[in-house]
Amino acid sequence: MALSTRKIINDPVHGFITIDHPLILDLVAHPYFQRLRRIKQMAFAMLVYPGAEHTRLHHALGAYHLMGVALNELKSKGVEITDEECLGAKLAILLHDVGHGPFSHALEHTLIPGVHHETLSLAIMQHLNDSFSNQLDTAIAIFTNQYHKPFLHQLISGQLDVDRMDYLTRDSFFTGVSEGVIGYDRILKMLTVHEGQLMVEEKGIFSIEKFLVARRLMYWQVYLHKTVIAAEMMLVKILERARRLAEQGRAVPSSSKAFHFFLTQEINHENLMQHLDLFCRLDDVDVLATIKGWMEHPDAVLSNLCTRLINRSLLKVKMSTEAPDPAQIRFYRNDVCSRLGISEEEAAYFVFEGEANNTTYNPIDESIQILFKNGVSKDISRVDHALIQHNLSTPVKKYYICYLG
Amino acid sequence: MALSTRKIINDPVHGFITIDHPLILDLVAHPYFQRLRRIKQMAFAMLVYPGAEHTRLHHALGAYHLMGVALNELKSKGVEITDEECLGAKLAILLHDVGHGPFSHALEHTLIPGVHHETLSLAIMQHLNDSFSNQLDTAIAIFTNQYHKPFLHQLISGQLDVDRMDYLTRDSFFTGVSEGVIGYDRILKMLTVHEGQLMVEEKGIFSIEKFLVARRLMYWQVYLHKTVIAAEMMLVKILERARRLAEQGRAVPSSSKAFHFFLTQEINHENLMQHLDLFCRLDDVDVLATIKGWMEHPDAVLSNLCTRLINRSLLKVKMSTEAPDPAQIRFYRNDVCSRLGISEEEAAYFVFEGEANNTTYNPIDESIQILFKNGVSKDISRVDHALIQHNLSTPVKKYYICYLG
Amino acid sequence: MALSTRKIINDPVHGFITIDHPLILDLVAHPYFQRLRRIKQMAFAMLVYPGAEHTRLHHALGAYHLMGVALNELKSKGVEITDEECLGAKLAILLHDVGHGPFSHALEHTLIPGVHHETLSLAIMQHLNDSFSNQLDTAIAIFTNQYHKPFLHQLISGQLDVDRMDYLTRDSFFTGVSEGVIGYDRILKMLTVHEGQLMVEEKGIFSIEKFLVARRLMYWQVYLHKTVIAAEMMLVKILERARRLAEQGRAVPSSSKAFHFFLTQEINHENLMQHLDLFCRLDDVDVLATIKGWMEHPDAVLSNLCTRLINRSLLKVKMSTEAPDPAQIRFYRNDVCSRLGISEEEAAYFVFEGEANNTTYNPIDESIQILFKNGVSKDISRVDHALIQHNLSTPVKKYYICYLG
Amino acid sequence: MALSTRKIINDPVHGFITIDHPLILDLVAHPYFQRLRRIKQMAFAMLVYPGAEHTRLHHALGAYHLMGVALNELKSKGVEITDEECLGAKLAILLHDVGHGPFSHALEHTLIPGVHHETLSLAIMQHLNDSFSNQLDTAIAIFTNQYHKPFLHQLISGQLDVDRMDYLTRDSFFTGVSEGVIGYDRILKMLTVHEGQLMVEEKGIFSIEKFLVARRLMYWQVYLHKTVIAAEMMLVKILERARRLAEQGRAVPSSSKAFHFFLTQEINHENLMQHLDLFCRLDDVDVLATIKGWMEHPDAVLSNLCTRLINRSLLKVKMSTEAPDPAQIRFYRNDVCSRLGISEEEAAYFVFEGEANNTTYNPIDESIQILFKNGVSKDISRVDHALIQHNLSTPVKKYYICYLG
Repeated sequence: MALSTRKIINDPVHGFITIDHPLILDLVAHPYFQRLRRIKQMAFAMLVYPGAEHTRLHHALGAYHLMGVALNELKSKGVEITDEECLGAKLAILLHDVGHGPFSHALEHTLIPGVHHETLSLAIMQHLNDSFSNQLDTAIAIFTNQYHKPFLHQLISGQLDVDRMDYLTRDSFFTGVSEGVIGYDRILKMLTVHEGQLMVEEKGIFSIEKFLVARRLMYWQVYLHKTVIAAEMMLVKILERARRLAEQGRAVPSSSKAFHFFLTQEINHENLMQHLDLFCRLDDVDVLATIKGWMEHPDAVLSNLCTRLINRSLLKVKMSTEAPDPAQIRFYRNDVCSRLGISEEEAAYFVFEGEANNTTYNPIDESIQILFKNGVSKDISRVDHALIQHNLSTPVKKYYICYLG
Repeated sequence: MALSTRKIINDPVHGFITIDHPLILDLVAHPYFQRLRRIKQMAFAMLVYPGAEHTRLHHALGAYHLMGVALNELKSKGVEITDEECLGAKLAILLHDVGHGPFSHALEHTLIPGVHHETLSLAIMQHLNDSFSNQLDTAIAIFTNQYHKPFLHQLISGQLDVDRMDYLTRDSFFTGVSEGVIGYDRILKMLTVHEGQLMVEEKGIFSIEKFLVARRLMYWQVYLHKTVIAAEMMLVKILERARRLAEQGRAVPSSSKAFHFFLTQEINHENLMQHLDLFCRLDDVDVLATIKGWMEHPDAVLSNLCTRLINRSLLKVKMSTEAPDPAQIRFYRNDVCSRLGISEEEAAYFVFEGEANNTTYNPIDESIQILFKNGVSKDISRVDHALIQHNLSTPVKKYYICYLG
Repeated sequence: MALSTRKIINDPVHGFITIDHPLILDLVAHPYFQRLRRIKQMAFAMLVYPGAEHTRLHHALGAYHLMGVALNELKSKGVEITDEECLGAKLAILLHDVGHGPFSHALEHTLIPGVHHETLSLAIMQHLNDSFSNQLDTAIAIFTNQYHKPFLHQLISGQLDVDRMDYLTRDSFFTGVSEGVIGYDRILKMLTVHEGQLMVEEKGIFSIEKFLVARRLMYWQVYLHKTVIAAEMMLVKILERARRLAEQGRAVPSSSKAFHFFLTQEINHENLMQHLDLFCRLDDVDVLATIKGWMEHPDAVLSNLCTRLINRSLLKVKMSTEAPDPAQIRFYRNDVCSRLGISEEEAAYFVFEGEANNTTYNPIDESIQILFKNGVSKDISRVDHALIQHNLSTPVKKYYICYLG
Repeated sequence: MALSTRKIINDPVHGFITIDHPLILDLVAHPYFQRLRRIKQMAFAMLVYPGAEHTRLHHALGAYHLMGVALNELKSKGVEITDEECLGAKLAILLHDVGHGPFSHALEHTLIPGVHHETLSLAIMQHLNDSFSNQLDTAIAIFTNQYHKPFLHQLISGQLDVDRMDYLTRDSFFTGVSEGVIGYDRILKMLTVHEGQLMVEEKGIFSIEKFLVARRLMYWQVYLHKTVIAAEMMLVKILERARRLAEQGRAVPSSSKAFHFFLTQEINHENLMQHLDLFCRLDDVDVLATIKGWMEHPDAVLSNLCTRLINRSLLKVKMSTEAPDPAQIRFYRNDVCSRLGISEEEAAYFVFEGEANNTTYNPIDESIQILFKNGVSKDISRVDHALIQHNLSTPVKKYYICYLG
């Protein structure tokens, strides 16, 4: 085998990741994929967990690796999967997040409202398919769940997809939240296919339970950590403020053309697709460099928020299971008005409320089917003595209030 | 400090275990403690998980180490604990399992029916207290929950004691069942004392949930694994058969006097205490050497069972949530009768039924109290959106049937 | 203890890092320290090892943690260390790298030639000492080796300092190069102080050998990996080119004032100190945002190099133990001239040579003293059957040539 | 695939070990192989490293697993290996240690002097070959290095065989001596075959260096630890004493017929082969049970040594690079005579000398060949700037003296 068609990548999470197909090597080397190096997987979580600096590129490679493991496992159990399907499933998972922008949540709220990153991933995949002589046809069919073997799509997007397995494991690894470890190796060993659907063998029930509980823990302890929420919401407020100033005709110099475009244009599904290449130049660097520049912006609200975010002098957050009292918000806003000498409207950039929510297990949208030895399959919430029950399928909602401490 | 009063022990689980008190060094060096080297922590689990060869001595040292970590953590939070109390709590946990016999479950059923290993641990501690000029007084008070600071006892015996934390972590480590990892380091950081009781800080809730789910997994996947049950029950049947033969006046040569004594005497609480020293000579070696000898015993039942256990040619097991059908048992027994040419009564040594059960969380016997920031404490099953609920406090019962496959 | 004076940080490498002194909390929260979040510890190593995204802030916290462990260990062996000295040593290690700029090697070659990062760290520490009422006096004395207990300085800067222990361990962890693990926990247990000097107990010899060999491996396999060298040298060439263009009066727009200042001014020791605050605004974001902007610069050399660096379309590298043949360099340059249509002088930005070197053990500058039980100390290269010998103290030099593949 | 032909075993070291060939399943289930469950891999090392309780069965399974990984790696590089050869190599490594007796070193010195365990492994393999219709022909040819592809034998027995890779990794794992970790995964990736010989790719040099240094560390820190030597030599002395007593016609009751046979017969190569089945009943249990029995033997020497070994009240050991002074030995013997009231001849069981030695790298017997990109191969001790040099190929000898402390 020629050396150039085989590449081994060190991964502290999975050991060694092997790439041994020329098309995958080409796609990994493509600037659109390399851009993911400059987008952190966990956005501002590193402000709480300093190890959480890993990138979306690293996650994409890890998920690609797990897809290979899962497919081998299924093949060794006699599930029929062709080489073409293997390649398609691997390409699809490799590119599943290629449409992510920097600090996705903030962007999805403000810069590109209403366009989901999966839509963008698909658009980019179609664009790459043109450049690579339609070699991504199967990958796209699998990604969009139009392929006739649904389990391949379920490996990419479902309760037990390799996307989740990689990001939960990886985020747990890099944050150092060791209780978040999900034990993906055993889950992969327990996967099976029944009537075209991805299922879990009976003896994997306890591993699945642990997986769901570890995920629940990661959500509340990491992804929805109040300090992480504070930082993300500050970025949202910064972008809202900058847009507002731009609408008023004030200069809001950006570090890049791409960022300036998305900041100042009204983006919708159509014009975004026209500017896909511009989108593919956008990364964390643009956002951070721009915010660093705005630390000295004449607008007090903008410069204050930017300085605080860069120096990690964040807004305070209170979380509660009950909606905040409007009187409390008024009190905090008045306090900010007098401390910073700003208007009440401006104070709303420093004092605001919001909601965070998470469902531990949703049996309707994406179920986990357990396959029993007798050939019967059941949703995991319906097996005897289930830990995972209906009450866990209702989203848990928490309210938060951000304010200047 | 003199070198002889400080000893560092390599532990693959906790790194380094430091012993820096002369009394603890003396007790570790005592033959009663060293005996625990020859008693495997997990009995026959190594027949399924070949790494599970670790000993009760290793577990006792590990639990001792965690006690030190827990006490330091509590002291750094301002909980008052004197040096005398620290030493007492460490001694108590070091010796908490010193009364375990080899293959405890089997012995507790047959050789020493009705005497719990904690009773024996206490008896041995009292015996050692005499030899060591009453230096174990505080340790014994804590062990028996007569000390005026209940949290010290709760660290030794309770839902969140360091005994469990060590054995779950250690058993998970040596079996390689990585999903069983409980994340004890974070739980230890979250412990606190409120009104004398051991509690967990509010932000530790998700870690506790994960702890309980990991424990649940270890029970069903490891401790109550059907092959492990088969081996343990075979040992019970072997001892029952040997006792029966002895009662009939037939020779059942043992590898040691100690084993012979417990095999042939009617043991109760009183005469056991008189023979404590004899008990303290008993270990896995006696049991295994005797069984190896019985592989050639003239009694077909005894020799067959012993040969099977030594060669890992075990009885088959079926587990079910429903009680086995008596007809099925009759069927299997008849089959054995004809295959081995033995009587129906003898067939009962090869075909029999039993029950395994486990409770995920029992809020009545041993509760886990969560301490909220506002000073209120609640049982974990009562906090909002609890994963751990009442249905988990009912023991789950599984029936099994062993038979000759 | 008030909650605000105690902070626990999750670190995947060391578990939990505890900060429990208000001055350390204040310094960690200072913008000068927070800047280290935006400087990667390993610069472009992430182009080869995608996990190597960890920051200088994370390393500083890790080294601070190991300092605490080392000091506790020494104190437990009877070495006298006061609270003031503990705090001083911890502050000194926390801030030892605070003077690092982004992509230090490139900057030290081009932007700030001749000013070592330790000089800058000291300048910043002195500046902070002014702000914090001289509370850093002891730290500065230890850092500059003017304190009367030399072992405290040796823990910060020496063959066995906690700086190296942390960065080797951390870099090994995040790259996934597991053979680079140095086993710092045992080395820390073996440290001792003899006549004021940091030494290693006799029984630690093999651990030290393994430490030096692991370090050797990390140098040649990671730090001096040819692809990493290629990327770093490309950055050097980019900055050289930009300076050249600026000297010629051409516009080289930077993403920040700070970067522009250092790019266009002639920096020496004096004027740098005047602009310390400007230096403390510089980080990886400025460099990367500027390079992203230059991808469209009218100068073909600059835009080509920037595009290649951002898209990871790097120059090729050949390493050899012999100096490259000038004819080969001429050949490659001619090739570039014709392919890119540029002058020979410009081709030198794409084709150039250099040297990498590393010494496994240098017994002269920084020795490792082994303390034998009989009280005698010897350099590790002089103990019987030493693995570490004189031949390892000569630097190994490797030549490389970069060219357009 | 039928379920019965595929078995997955949890291994904390390698994750999951898969057995998917019926012949391998049969051999693993054979009593000769199952016997290895009752022989500890590291004999008395657990007296120093309490985790070192792992068995020869576990090591054999681990080495079998690594063989599969190595063969896959080589095949993926284009080395031709047939299914028959794969199976042969896997069988050979699975059974390579099947001829080990309990506490091999002691036995090889006393019970079975002059018969090496590899001779016994071969004899047992031949015996099994008869039972399994010559299906082990290829395995035996590979094991005895008579197969025409020498690299297959080198994977079983050579400087870089999977035997060493497994035992060093496994022993390091279970002792907790984390610096002993050798990084086998990368070494396996670097293996290649050149002209039929097993070699290492050039870029693996540093990994090999680290492997040899880690091995060196394991020898001196673990395998030749003075307390481990003390325990092993005590067992030798116990057996010598028991033989002596038996020769004098005194009763030395053994716990098993097998042990009694080897204790009281003059064993040589021939009569051992006649009694192979008896040998295959011998394990650690026989040795330990017998020694426990001898704790109450009327002979003072025997009972004293046995009691000390069981209770871990070991002889003291002094190690030195120089041969012990005979006067010192006389002094210690006189001391024992008076303390225990025994003769000078008997005192020699408590006070004696010996040697331990180890070679870090022996380029003559078993070399490591590095294959350079230009197709040239060199011994690792001859590459430029080699760490591994001639001085490391001379065995290091250490003298020890055991005495009653």
